[in-house]
Amino acid sequence: MTETNDTGRILLALTGMPTDMWLDEFARAAPDRKVVVEPDGAADPSIRYAVVWKQRPALLSKLPSLKAIFSLGAGVDHVFRDPDLPDVPIVRVVSPDLTTRMSEYVAWQVLDHHRLGPRYRAQQARKVWNEDRGQKAARDITVGIMGLGELGRDAAAKLQALGFRVSGWSRTEKQVEGVACHAGPEGLGPFLASADIFVVLLPLTPDTSGILDRSLFERMTRRGPLGAPVLINAGRGGLQNEADILAALDEGLLSAVTLDVFQQEPLAPDSPFWSHPAVTVTPHAAAASVPSSLIGPMVAQMDAHDRGEPLVNLVNRAAGY
Amino acid sequence: MTETNDTGRILLALTGMPTDMWLDEFARAAPDRKVVVEPDGAADPSIRYAVVWKQRPALLSKLPSLKAIFSLGAGVDHVFRDPDLPDVPIVRVVSPDLTTRMSEYVAWQVLDHHRLGPRYRAQQARKVWNEDRGQKAARDITVGIMGLGELGRDAAAKLQALGFRVSGWSRTEKQVEGVACHAGPEGLGPFLASADIFVVLLPLTPDTSGILDRSLFERMTRRGPLGAPVLINAGRGGLQNEADILAALDEGLLSAVTLDVFQQEPLAPDSPFWSHPAVTVTPHAAAASVPSSLIGPMVAQMDAHDRGEPLVNLVNRAAGY
Repeated sequence: MTETNDTGRILLALTGMPTDMWLDEFARAAPDRKVVVEPDGAADPSIRYAVVWKQRPALLSKLPSLKAIFSLGAGVDHVFRDPDLPDVPIVRVVSPDLTTRMSEYVAWQVLDHHRLGPRYRAQQARKVWNEDRGQKAARDITVGIMGLGELGRDAAAKLQALGFRVSGWSRTEKQVEGVACHAGPEGLGPFLASADIFVVLLPLTPDTSGILDRSLFERMTRRGPLGAPVLINAGRGGLQNEADILAALDEGLLSAVTLDVFQQEPLAPDSPFWSHPAVTVTPHAAAASVPSSLIGPMVAQMDAHDRGEPLVNLVNRAAGY
Repeated sequence: MTETNDTGRILLALTGMPTDMWLDEFARAAPDRKVVVEPDGAADPSIRYAVVWKQRPALLSKLPSLKAIFSLGAGVDHVFRDPDLPDVPIVRVVSPDLTTRMSEYVAWQVLDHHRLGPRYRAQQARKVWNEDRGQKAARDITVGIMGLGELGRDAAAKLQALGFRVSGWSRTEKQVEGVACHAGPEGLGPFLASADIFVVLLPLTPDTSGILDRSLFERMTRRGPLGAPVLINAGRGGLQNEADILAALDEGLLSAVTLDVFQQEPLAPDSPFWSHPAVTVTPHAAAASVPSSLIGPMVAQMDAHDRGEPLVNLVNRAAGY
């Protein structure tokens, strides 16, 4: 008896992430689908879908029956590092769970800066009771969101619910309810002049690599109620010029930063970010990819595609995200 | 020519708070009204309204023409400390600004505990990069709000917008959209078993004085996703038994607390709260009374009352809030 597997196999190609939890979840969510892990799956003609996180270069190009690539993660820059990436659709993960977790993180860090968390914690350490009588209300503060995809739009709505004004910037023109939207290179200047706290949720592409640099910080307004602006990067470490961030803090171009991502992760023990008084470090913890919330929607897309339906949440290869 | 002042005078009777900023705001908001500060205003028969913060006892009872007392602050326990309080209506301040500021504080502190702020800050201090893979989503966490007045209801709506489940407890039965509401002594047990993070926004009355004690903490569930619950008191220091809170932390009845209010303020330099690793102290900064946002609504009420319209946001003297 020969094996007839109508649905084809799934290749799980992960680097730097354990595979067991994902295999377990596939076994629960799609018990009828066979999932293989490289190198077993390399060059296997029965593999129809690849689920990847920083896949090994030139692995996917050897799969003759590959129909689509699914990224484990909202950002897909890790997929494009493969110089032999085959020309099949790339699907980004869009999960309400992931989106909600990111918005929790954004709201948390925006509130922590707005409500003077670092100052009050420093006072507590010195046993000092001193209310800041200049505390602004949320409506006095504009949060500028860089990147108005799924994550940026959800964060914008939740920040507005908390009372903040919100502006946004994206590569292409977007309309988001209640948000002052700016787009493209010509919109960047007005955007940078519009906000007090900047939240970065941009994809990492050749256009955005290193965008968070001195020239950008110099264009931010320092006439708002906070004085120098606050920067929160929950996108990708590759977006930021880390030497420029440190210099901008020390020169007063920025007043404080929260960084969840870094050019090198884990952050090196000798990084000056750890002990800088104006820096909050979190260990790439803004929005964890939780197997139970990601694999279900992924399998549903594979099932739909097998029935001849179109894939959704496709990556724009030309734009790189 | 004798002075004819149709609107009568306003007495500003504040203790432990500067008066200048309030006088300035009255001058802006009600230039035609005369505002006097005790002791000038004592026993003055032209005084029609008193605006008070911890007024001197027996001061108000000497005012023969007093029509109403306005409290500067959402809590009115400070008004009732006066044993000779005259039998006139007491108006609490209800200001969207104050409400929004309190909800900012509540969302900030709930998120800080939920998103493991204390843990990640301790890791940063030790230069440790370690993502907690067990991070729960907001929908896995129930926030229990004690007190479902203006402040509690607004906080509930904003926590729900962030994805949290919300339960609530109040003296009398309330219905709040999306909130599992409990009421009265018989509702307290089910409420305490329902939540993971408790937010206290109760008024301080003879019924609630010292309610946050060991017997209450013992009835909270410790089977939720956080293990032992988190307590956030942004109400009044008189609600809490401080020795019981410290013991509950050390015995594992509570996992962490945030306290914005204390039995004695400022908190004494030798208080163990300052340096306890599971305690966040803020200096009664949750929701500052900002003159510009409070005096306008207060003057509007006085104007309406002078025209014969009823006062709103009245304190229930029997209930004490």
